[in-house]
Amino acid sequence: MAYPYKKMDEEDFAYIRSVTAGDRVWVGKEIGEEYYRDEMPEYGVYPPELYVEVTDKEEISRIMAYAYEKNIPVVCRGAGTGLAGGATCKYGGIMLSVMRMNRIFPVDHKNQTITVQPGALLLDVQAAAAAEGLFYPVDPGEKTASIGGNVITNAGGMKAVRYGLTRDFVRCMEAVLPDGSVMNFSSNVVKNTTGYDIKDLVIGSEGTLCILTEVTLKLLPAPTCSCTLVMPFSSLEECADMVPKVLELPFIPTAIEFLERELIDIVERNLNKLFPVKEGDAVLIVMYDASSKQELDSAVEAAAQAALANGAYDCFIADTPERAGTVWEVRGGILEGMKADSVAQEECDVVVPRSQIAGYVKAAKRIALSHGIRVEPCGHCGDGNIHTEMLRDASMSDEEWKNATQASLKELYALSKELGGQLSGEHGIGNGRLEFLEEFVGPRMIRLYKAIKLAFDDKLILNPGKVIEFNK
Amino acid sequence: MAYPYKKMDEEDFAYIRSVTAGDRVWVGKEIGEEYYRDEMPEYGVYPPELYVEVTDKEEISRIMAYAYEKNIPVVCRGAGTGLAGGATCKYGGIMLSVMRMNRIFPVDHKNQTITVQPGALLLDVQAAAAAEGLFYPVDPGEKTASIGGNVITNAGGMKAVRYGLTRDFVRCMEAVLPDGSVMNFSSNVVKNTTGYDIKDLVIGSEGTLCILTEVTLKLLPAPTCSCTLVMPFSSLEECADMVPKVLELPFIPTAIEFLERELIDIVERNLNKLFPVKEGDAVLIVMYDASSKQELDSAVEAAAQAALANGAYDCFIADTPERAGTVWEVRGGILEGMKADSVAQEECDVVVPRSQIAGYVKAAKRIALSHGIRVEPCGHCGDGNIHTEMLRDASMSDEEWKNATQASLKELYALSKELGGQLSGEHGIGNGRLEFLEEFVGPRMIRLYKAIKLAFDDKLILNPGKVIEFNK
Repeated sequence: MAYPYKKMDEEDFAYIRSVTAGDRVWVGKEIGEEYYRDEMPEYGVYPPELYVEVTDKEEISRIMAYAYEKNIPVVCRGAGTGLAGGATCKYGGIMLSVMRMNRIFPVDHKNQTITVQPGALLLDVQAAAAAEGLFYPVDPGEKTASIGGNVITNAGGMKAVRYGLTRDFVRCMEAVLPDGSVMNFSSNVVKNTTGYDIKDLVIGSEGTLCILTEVTLKLLPAPTCSCTLVMPFSSLEECADMVPKVLELPFIPTAIEFLERELIDIVERNLNKLFPVKEGDAVLIVMYDASSKQELDSAVEAAAQAALANGAYDCFIADTPERAGTVWEVRGGILEGMKADSVAQEECDVVVPRSQIAGYVKAAKRIALSHGIRVEPCGHCGDGNIHTEMLRDASMSDEEWKNATQASLKELYALSKELGGQLSGEHGIGNGRLEFLEEFVGPRMIRLYKAIKLAFDDKLILNPGKVIEFNK
Repeated sequence: MAYPYKKMDEEDFAYIRSVTAGDRVWVGKEIGEEYYRDEMPEYGVYPPELYVEVTDKEEISRIMAYAYEKNIPVVCRGAGTGLAGGATCKYGGIMLSVMRMNRIFPVDHKNQTITVQPGALLLDVQAAAAAEGLFYPVDPGEKTASIGGNVITNAGGMKAVRYGLTRDFVRCMEAVLPDGSVMNFSSNVVKNTTGYDIKDLVIGSEGTLCILTEVTLKLLPAPTCSCTLVMPFSSLEECADMVPKVLELPFIPTAIEFLERELIDIVERNLNKLFPVKEGDAVLIVMYDASSKQELDSAVEAAAQAALANGAYDCFIADTPERAGTVWEVRGGILEGMKADSVAQEECDVVVPRSQIAGYVKAAKRIALSHGIRVEPCGHCGDGNIHTEMLRDASMSDEEWKNATQASLKELYALSKELGGQLSGEHGIGNGRLEFLEEFVGPRMIRLYKAIKLAFDDKLILNPGKVIEFNK
């Protein structure tokens, strides 16, 4: 075990400068405060001792080998858009930014892949694929995230119903281990049973096992058309019951989201966006991509019929980009609307079996209310990942808010577990959900996590205190 | 480290009987010789000291806890259809068969999943899904494999191009660790970022990390129609060049296979099956599934046009089950045909990037020929997994055959590595490919594999000497 870590001194700073460049290294108070935290300062604000912007894997390898020898913690940083307090220097040490490693190599048409460095932004990767007539479909909300961050947290997003998660598009990766070794996990092949599947273990490991230096992503032919349907129902239960009916049709939807009327009202009220469907206490939004107009029409017709047969008041078909835009703008404005409608927010990112969505949402509201908090569940109905946003009213004191959210989260996680769900669907554990993890997965699983962490990082120098905490 | 293991004695036998049942335990010479080996006796024939057929996870847990305490190796056994010498008692000890744990639970329509015990056969799982209007698409050649074996080896098969591998259909699993702990890796949810992704690490780990006791599999709506196209080309290169053209079309094919004429001749000559297309030194076989006739027609038309535009002599469209049958029967008869055409076979299961298929096949033939062996590469063109079958002629002595295959394999693996491929695409390492693994992945990766193995199995009692060997 590596605690306590070495406190960095001038000699360490000089070494890091010597293997990188003086103008890419900052120490102490020189370091911008934005690097003390990610998007959720609630989950920890920690100043690094040294902040370095690396330009290639050799620099990473040398820094890691040094940190390994000297017992200095290292945290890899992408765009800093995480929502779990993951990319922060909880134990000080080095923050290593890969944002200058943002090369996007030419699309490999024969293998239908694109190879990129971890600092490339998601939106740039999507654009590079599109420019070559191909499609990187993973679509988490935050388009300015780094692709390395997407991989290392297994980012999800709305289109997971049809296309899957980031994991499903990672062909192979190059990474640096805590001791500085440069490794390749798999290669540009479609399948592989050569030894243990380390690639998939690393995906979603939140920077605790290795540092990504390059990743090769699978691409798809781009769909040629798409259509969005809005199905208004009298209740959330009916909405949720519709989900398996949609999934049983022989057309795989791209996205299935739900919105309750009060959430639509919040967005309309605060952001001046109008939702095109006025009926229904809850609406199901279903999107289809297709490779031909015929295929799309068949899917839309079948889904609309199924909606009406299952109690929808109507089925609004947004078959032009403009119409679809009015739907997705409201969906996309939820977080902003809630921020405008409250003074603070806390989020619970549970995922439950699809069959339990309605039950979870009803119980979640009851739980939050019992602690005096307003809660607005929304999210990915097609995959059971319900972002349960807790909203703080101006009248609450800091302590009331903290106690109420902690008590609510504890019960919400217990509820998710009881319903066969998980603690986090796509945002990860990081530092923010750490205290809830052991209760959720149990002590034997924690022992297994610790053993896996040690298999990669026997000195515990890589992003220590995230996902799993040894220091207690 | 656990070497040497305890030699089992009467006390051990009595204990295993006491936690299971006397009529489900066999010891020493009572054990059928079929349990000494899998489908590849070339990769090792090892008698277990005790063979037990368990009926539930509690029995497995008790056996493992005992074996852990006493330092006795345990090998879990499914249907024994593996092709890597994986499910054998290399260090003696207990062979634990899960074939009586073959329950298939009712399809869960709301979650579109099916939960099964590991001893259920693949064909029975496929049938159970189909009986409820759903579809388990993973389709490895061996339909009498156990589903547990499929999961633990990440079985692939021909339909991987469209649907993916067994991995892509595993929602969650229950498993017993070497110390007897019963664990759940994920739950019936579509996505999960709660802790490390142990589920995916376990898939493909060949029984070396834990024993599966239950698995929940994702199902899909069944396609309503399908069509097979045969595209004859003048050379394998043209055939291989056609693959990216097919994949660039906006219709995702279910399967893409290639056959060279000499392999078609072998099947026709030995099995009296006639292939419907007489032209071409090499043919590409492309299959489409679709949810409507319109969608299928669009895909078939686009693919046929692309074939003709890229040098195919013709495009044979097998649009009835009978016509498609004549194509797939020849493809399915390859192994049998080769067995009839030679006195022994050795197989190389490399996977290469799709862009390297033609280069690999040509070089593979040259390599084998230089060692005096006939080689017939065939396989999954859509995913680069080329089963490179080496055929022994009657004139070769045992030693000549052994030396020639070993020398060829060594060069074929080096070739695969040079082309950016992997050692095994779907059959795994087991015991049969162990000696080639370190050379392929390098010493640092082997150290990482060992550390991962120890994280699960610190006494090395679970399927020791497979995938990774400590005892040398």
